[in-house]
Amino acid sequence: MPRGVITLATDFGLRDPWVGTMKGVILSVTRDVHLVDLTHEIAPHDVLEGALALETAVPFFPEGTIHLAVVDPGVGGARRALVVAWGECCFVGPDNGLFTPFLLAPGWRAFELTAAEYRRPEVSRTFHGRDVFAPAAAYLALGVFPERFGAEVTDPVVLPWPAPRAVPGGLAGEVVHVDRFGNLITSIPAGDVEAAAAVVVGGRELPLVGAYAEIGRGAAAGLVGSSRRLEIAVREGSAAAALGIGRGAPVEVRTRSSSTKK
Amino acid sequence: MPRGVITLATDFGLRDPWVGTMKGVILSVTRDVHLVDLTHEIAPHDVLEGALALETAVPFFPEGTIHLAVVDPGVGGARRALVVAWGECCFVGPDNGLFTPFLLAPGWRAFELTAAEYRRPEVSRTFHGRDVFAPAAAYLALGVFPERFGAEVTDPVVLPWPAPRAVPGGLAGEVVHVDRFGNLITSIPAGDVEAAAAVVVGGRELPLVGAYAEIGRGAAAGLVGSSRRLEIAVREGSAAAALGIGRGAPVEVRTRSSSTKK
Amino acid sequence: MPRGVITLATDFGLRDPWVGTMKGVILSVTRDVHLVDLTHEIAPHDVLEGALALETAVPFFPEGTIHLAVVDPGVGGARRALVVAWGECCFVGPDNGLFTPFLLAPGWRAFELTAAEYRRPEVSRTFHGRDVFAPAAAYLALGVFPERFGAEVTDPVVLPWPAPRAVPGGLAGEVVHVDRFGNLITSIPAGDVEAAAAVVVGGRELPLVGAYAEIGRGAAAGLVGSSRRLEIAVREGSAAAALGIGRGAPVEVRTRSSSTKK
Repeated sequence: MPRGVITLATDFGLRDPWVGTMKGVILSVTRDVHLVDLTHEIAPHDVLEGALALETAVPFFPEGTIHLAVVDPGVGGARRALVVAWGECCFVGPDNGLFTPFLLAPGWRAFELTAAEYRRPEVSRTFHGRDVFAPAAAYLALGVFPERFGAEVTDPVVLPWPAPRAVPGGLAGEVVHVDRFGNLITSIPAGDVEAAAAVVVGGRELPLVGAYAEIGRGAAAGLVGSSRRLEIAVREGSAAAALGIGRGAPVEVRTRSSSTKK
Repeated sequence: MPRGVITLATDFGLRDPWVGTMKGVILSVTRDVHLVDLTHEIAPHDVLEGALALETAVPFFPEGTIHLAVVDPGVGGARRALVVAWGECCFVGPDNGLFTPFLLAPGWRAFELTAAEYRRPEVSRTFHGRDVFAPAAAYLALGVFPERFGAEVTDPVVLPWPAPRAVPGGLAGEVVHVDRFGNLITSIPAGDVEAAAAVVVGGRELPLVGAYAEIGRGAAAGLVGSSRRLEIAVREGSAAAALGIGRGAPVEVRTRSSSTKK
Repeated sequence: MPRGVITLATDFGLRDPWVGTMKGVILSVTRDVHLVDLTHEIAPHDVLEGALALETAVPFFPEGTIHLAVVDPGVGGARRALVVAWGECCFVGPDNGLFTPFLLAPGWRAFELTAAEYRRPEVSRTFHGRDVFAPAAAYLALGVFPERFGAEVTDPVVLPWPAPRAVPGGLAGEVVHVDRFGNLITSIPAGDVEAAAAVVVGGRELPLVGAYAEIGRGAAAGLVGSSRRLEIAVREGSAAAALGIGRGAPVEVRTRSSSTKK
């Protein structure tokens, strides 16, 4: 059997040794794993940003991967700890909506992480990533079945999910993320871009293209980006800076060409 | 025998390929290891911050882990290079106090890294992380005994260690670190918090709670944090920003409730 | 046979899960690898900075290492995708000059990455790191020969490479990089520093020393740094800040002592 894969996604940042500490806990249970960082720079406490990161990355991991995700403003309070079995994968983390993209369709099963034998002996009230979630991920990698961790949960927390709505002449959505390059990632999925003729954002109508390389230098355009969503980009520049907009800004795709009136 | 674990903690940052280069040197000696980053964002030349990061993370790693740490303002000068055997673990790095938390109790043995066969053939005067410490860690992972690396050192450098002192009605300490969330980590250990009724910082008296989730939204409180020290936190906010204080700020815990006079 | 080593160097940053996604693709092909990050903080689209990072790190990796590098402003356009066999190593990435340091001497062979069986089934026009380069690196690690990936390329893109030029009394070069510590890395190689008596930068003449520890506190000096180039450093401080200069600034080494006139 090949070695297991555990991914880690958190809002812990890389300055403090918290991520490394979780890895120490995992390796204390099993060393027969690959540990892969998805990101630890999720904005502090931003559960939606964490969920979007998982949605983007998870489809590219092999069957059997265990995704450990911790954006956990409610740690130490009443929120439940979860393991979610989804296809051949598992998710481990707090029950606060972080796994929303995978809970929107049927087929998942969720369990509360309560079994004492799969936690650290001493569980703090500030760091369940280390004391609850990391050991759970490690035991899953060792082959412990998800249903062994605790009682089934049928009502995990699901976030309102950013989805476009129909408007006259097209679809309206919003910017959900600004990436490192200043590209504006929107809530409009790839499938809705194929029928579109143009995108309107920040009061400007922009063309739709197939690749960054088709955008004129310094110009802006819409395209289907790496997260399979409509994205607004400026060639070798920052769309966020050039257009002066950020997360939450409204975006529309037009199914027929129509000018924006100022 | 399971694969060995080598952790890496440095002030090298992640922009330049220095950490990757050290890993290349390790993997040139042995591939039978897990390489785990603790942090590479220790403030440049800040040996105390490095020592605190090690103190926090090391207890969560399995027996036999080798901790390679490089915060090394004295590289190329007279400072010694060390391997420290501590319980089942080993530390490798410069002799400048980086391993202070583990040298404060008996039981360690230290050796100077001088044996030419466990260094790179050419040793630069600017990058002992690559040329001296990384190969030493790799050879330790291969099973070379610490005493093979050089002469025993009985007087490794030990930093003055931040510890609280008794004051009327309580204990006085200081903020030793500000984490990514803006939490203020103090020099007061968990054991001294249990008997306390309140914490005074920045001229304000704050309650002590058990978890972030017990703090009112936007309010500040003290609690025992993930590093097993008193920490000042603001619920889903930055205590450093809200209170306007940082590293070095004085902190007191009160064993009996007493108001702070403005 | 020991497990293979794949390094990753990109300008993707660590906030978005793109690097993790590439690792998911690699591990979907083979798990018999070590994945080592060189850097993901190359300035966006800065191919020269990426090439310099590779030049610095590659010599310290074991034979057989596969270096996956993606700084790819031309993704989705006409630029070719390459595998370059260089000694016992391979490079995988866009044909835009990223591998220049290794193409300046004879002995390499390059091939265009076109074979459909070594790509992901669906290739986007925005993320060849995930869809083209990561699977190619994984198949190389599995033992697929470079020439199997496509037609031979004899004219890969080579960048103008920063090299010093002779001037009266010495050599003239420039600052090519500012590292995390504020050290100024120059285009002047170590070999040309040995014969030099002083370095002139920002209108100041500085001494040459052998190690940081030989510089007076707060003073500036030149030395051969970890990248085997002349570097300007300030003891436990930032030379970039102290001298007020950055990338592109002219630097001269003097073979005979000569004062700088103001």
